Amino acid sequence: MERKVSESVINRLPRYYRYLNELSKSGIERISSKELSQKMGVTASQIRQDLNCFGGFGQQGYGYNVKLLQEEIGKILGLNTPKTAILVGAGNLGRAFAINTSFEPRGFKLIGIFDIDKNKVGTTVKNITIMDYSEIKDFIEKNKPVMAILAVPRTHVREVANELIDYGIKAFLNFSYAEISQTDGISVENIHFSDSLMRLSYKIKENYSKDI
Amino acid sequence: MERKVSESVINRLPRYYRYLNELSKSGIERISSKELSQKMGVTASQIRQDLNCFGGFGQQGYGYNVKLLQEEIGKILGLNTPKTAILVGAGNLGRAFAINTSFEPRGFKLIGIFDIDKNKVGTTVKNITIMDYSEIKDFIEKNKPVMAILAVPRTHVREVANELIDYGIKAFLNFSYAEISQTDGISVENIHFSDSLMRLSYKIKENYSKDI
Repeated sequence: MERKVSESVINRLPRYYRYLNELSKSGIERISSKELSQKMGVTASQIRQDLNCFGGFGQQGYGYNVKLLQEEIGKILGLNTPKTAILVGAGNLGRAFAINTSFEPRGFKLIGIFDIDKNKVGTTVKNITIMDYSEIKDFIEKNKPVMAILAVPRTHVREVANELIDYGIKAFLNFSYAEISQTDGISVENIHFSDSLMRLSYKIKENYSKDI
Repeated sequence: MERKVSESVINRLPRYYRYLNELSKSGIERISSKELSQKMGVTASQIRQDLNCFGGFGQQGYGYNVKLLQEEIGKILGLNTPKTAILVGAGNLGRAFAINTSFEPRGFKLIGIFDIDKNKVGTTVKNITIMDYSEIKDFIEKNKPVMAILAVPRTHVREVANELIDYGIKAFLNFSYAEISQTDGISVENIHFSDSLMRLSYKIKENYSKDI
């Protein structure tokens, strides 16, 4: 049974999942919150607090069962229910994302790629043939994908997003700086390279001032 | 004068900066915390709290001066001090990042690109000629870049990171799932596509259960 969980806990869950996955692959069966905290650089009490949001997984003196905990977090994140996705924009970034990403372990299945560039249409990426953007409405009607990855120029993002929402898309992975409103059941996850760079700029500045 | 600021505030600063930049470009000179909160989907009190960490910028009844606030946040983030950076890995992802990113407005200047693939060496990306990875030590010694963007296969990340730290690199933008330790003055910013996908999976699941 799930309660309403804060955004900061949700933000940390994928990282827990990745760590537990690594531990599981290494054959480690159990881990204490202390050991997990050392591995992850998160305080043990934060870990316990986060996991308690979803029900008690740990046992005093035993710690956590790695496999079970990973499965539970996977369920919470909805990873076991594959959701179909399309990619809009097959430029450098879209292609790189499609090629470098394992969708199924993350709860998704990529089923279509679209672009307006006639030179790209008909070529394949990860065994998927790129289709002309003009075919997207029919495709969505027929295949009902849930999510769209937007790797299109910022100036087109809102227009494309609104169009896709009209056709029934409920979720977006957005690579642009244009923001998409998360209202009326629309979910958005943004990947802003510029924000990461700016945070790194801050961290470098802070470390430099410590050195002086 | 800056006080020690929490990670969650730092995480939000780049977004403030982007919004203020948009407002400034639209010719908007002042904005109240209420208006800013409506635009950003963050509570007005959160905004005031965050900005108060860095000194009082707002004025009762006036709100914030957009240009001044943007400049201040830019200073806090260190954007005015260009830090040199190199890219390691000129595959799909590295190239996409280099091509799609404006480095200077984010506090960086890309000065070198390296790869082990002989077919890539000698080609150019964004007017920078890709160099063989074997030349990286000499390049760092001569040019002293501060930051390295790692777009290499996960299995090589730790080895490359350790090597670059030995040569004097102090900061990393890391695209892989391998984690780099942030100790001894090393700054790391991670971009984990998989985490974004997993969070989106969660959001879709939550929205779906609301619809039922």
